[in-house]
Amino acid sequence: MNKIEHIGIAVKDLKASNELFAALFGEEHYKTETVESEGVITSFFESGPNKIELLQATNEHSAIAKFIAKKGEGIHHIAFAVNDIELEIERLTNEGFTMIHQSPKKGADDKLIAFLHPKSTNGVLIELCQDINR
Amino acid sequence: MNKIEHIGIAVKDLKASNELFAALFGEEHYKTETVESEGVITSFFESGPNKIELLQATNEHSAIAKFIAKKGEGIHHIAFAVNDIELEIERLTNEGFTMIHQSPKKGADDKLIAFLHPKSTNGVLIELCQDINR
Repeated sequence: MNKIEHIGIAVKDLKASNELFAALFGEEHYKTETVESEGVITSFFESGPNKIELLQATNEHSAIAKFIAKKGEGIHHIAFAVNDIELEIERLTNEGFTMIHQSPKKGADDKLIAFLHPKSTNGVLIELCQDINR
Repeated sequence: MNKIEHIGIAVKDLKASNELFAALFGEEHYKTETVESEGVITSFFESGPNKIELLQATNEHSAIAKFIAKKGEGIHHIAFAVNDIELEIERLTNEGFTMIHQSPKKGADDKLIAFLHPKSTNGVLIELCQDINR
């Protein structure tokens, strides 16, 4: 795992949170993206080699809506950059981790992604992500 | 804010979690450190330019013990590296953020640290940290 690619933060009101995080970083978000399949609108901030991804649900069935209903706004997941996501899924499965996704799927920000189940990782929701055009 | 310096993860059993995260990263933790004033034992893993800090409480009054009692194991805070922590505290206070620490204090890993109150940051506990010998 090469670095923390991004931290995903669940928010209720993306517009308000964009202003809040722009004030925090002293810099505006550099893009927004809707991921229909996940029922989320996202916005991205940069912090050196890392990103912060704010996530707002677009419908009540979205994982983000359920997360906020249960736990409130806050950190939702950590994503680690990997070179070869299929190899990492295989390695982690062999190590005994439970993958939510046994094969990669298309995520936001031109990435192939796969999540590990937080039950196998001390309650931390971990995402693997690989650049698609790597 | 230069980068994500580390992510702090609250765990119940540091020994078990050290093994789990070593399997996750394919690499052992590189140090442990006890911070008496915070009532925590910590261990650190590297992921490229970033670190993961596991935190186990050493007593029931520790913030980590209270966090786990309320929310269970999981991500506790995000720490951002800054060049001048006093300037950042002043800037963020002027931006309307609520600091838990109005002046820096000594943290783990040879850092000066200060936390922002999560009520002012979408439920995310944010730490600023500056290398002491910078």
